Amino acid sequence: MRYEELKIEGRNAVIEAFRSGKPIDKVFVLDGCQDGPVRTIVREAKKYDTILNFVTKERLDQMSETGKHQGVIAMAAAYEYASVEDILEAAKSKGEAPFIFLLDNIEDPHNLGAIIRTANLAGAHGVIIPKRRAAGLTATVARTSAGALNYTPVAKVTNMAATIEELKKEGLWFVCADMGGETMYRLNLKGPIGLVIGNEGEGVSRLVREKCDMIASIPMKGDIDSLNASVAAGVLAYEIVRQRME
Amino acid sequence: MRYEELKIEGRNAVIEAFRSGKPIDKVFVLDGCQDGPVRTIVREAKKYDTILNFVTKERLDQMSETGKHQGVIAMAAAYEYASVEDILEAAKSKGEAPFIFLLDNIEDPHNLGAIIRTANLAGAHGVIIPKRRAAGLTATVARTSAGALNYTPVAKVTNMAATIEELKKEGLWFVCADMGGETMYRLNLKGPIGLVIGNEGEGVSRLVREKCDMIASIPMKGDIDSLNASVAAGVLAYEIVRQRME
Repeated sequence: MRYEELKIEGRNAVIEAFRSGKPIDKVFVLDGCQDGPVRTIVREAKKYDTILNFVTKERLDQMSETGKHQGVIAMAAAYEYASVEDILEAAKSKGEAPFIFLLDNIEDPHNLGAIIRTANLAGAHGVIIPKRRAAGLTATVARTSAGALNYTPVAKVTNMAATIEELKKEGLWFVCADMGGETMYRLNLKGPIGLVIGNEGEGVSRLVREKCDMIASIPMKGDIDSLNASVAAGVLAYEIVRQRME
Repeated sequence: MRYEELKIEGRNAVIEAFRSGKPIDKVFVLDGCQDGPVRTIVREAKKYDTILNFVTKERLDQMSETGKHQGVIAMAAAYEYASVEDILEAAKSKGEAPFIFLLDNIEDPHNLGAIIRTANLAGAHGVIIPKRRAAGLTATVARTSAGALNYTPVAKVTNMAATIEELKKEGLWFVCADMGGETMYRLNLKGPIGLVIGNEGEGVSRLVREKCDMIASIPMKGDIDSLNASVAAGVLAYEIVRQRME
């Protein structure tokens, strides 16, 4: 399993985990408990938008693995990231042209999970996400990925534009979804390909967009601006699937 | 505007709203307030998974329109539903073959919103949802629809299978996404069409599935079972768009 959930028990351990920046998804606090450390934990949880649950002592006792929860249990996520080489290797071992998703700052964990799920089912060999300014692999992502996080390798990179440059040397072509591109049905999306998905609000960043070989536009016939990021990723990914199946 | 948010102020008004089954999205309660009616409201809010916010008196005063919030303000959603005839009329007035989404018990409001957003951008003329056992049009749906709820008519029907029968008389063909169907790229999805999207966990219900003329399968090349419902809706909707553009 690449992904697992960790339980952190006890007041100091949970406070420490928040302060060290560990991705904490959920905190269970003894209902009615109002002392200093517990208030600190509740404040930290609100600051990081962590889900707060006020529960009974029985519930905490049941959840506890150490028996020393002191009224607080936090759930953190641990994930073993892959490298970009692992992803290329996965394609090679299947004897397929590489098909990689590159997520340029997806912020919503539900979108991230749904996109990893789509990557798995569209037959992509992996997903690349940036180290900074984006959603990490939390329990919400794991849940919305519907298990895909355990199969589809996810790599984290410092510089998305530089990663694209390196992957071009491996023969990949890059396509991003953006306004003003060619209608996706008219592009040639066969062969080794990187599918670039932009941020929910701002789209693909300029630097990354400039590295792309093709800009694909999804036909928009309605009154509003754009599809949900995970829907757009799915629509474009399946146009790639369609062309590869031809 | 088809969609608007309503403020309900005062303890009895909010309790009444919960008891009458009004869709309440958010409740703002004066922080530290512990008396009977307020506890009842907090309990009802938890029962219906309503978002609870504990706020200061200043914040409530600021939000209040009546000046008589008594420590409680609820936000409810009001939406003017369309009829199935309105949707057919919308297609006719554009001189297009009808293209309608039918949602067979979508439960997650984020999915519902994303699907209405997709329906708008794919050029569908409306969305039909069932009266019972499904997500209604709450503020979450309105937000995730990114404004589409104001443009794309949504009709509510008691019996989805009967509605399909009636629409067949208008010349529509029905396609649903499900396992064991023909690969969607091989189906003829042109002409007047109803796209049926099943429930997140259970898929399309048997009765509705039996009414469909075609069962489309989205190619699945991965390790897990199925796409997110809103992604599947998007992928299939855009296959219809592609065929219509040919």
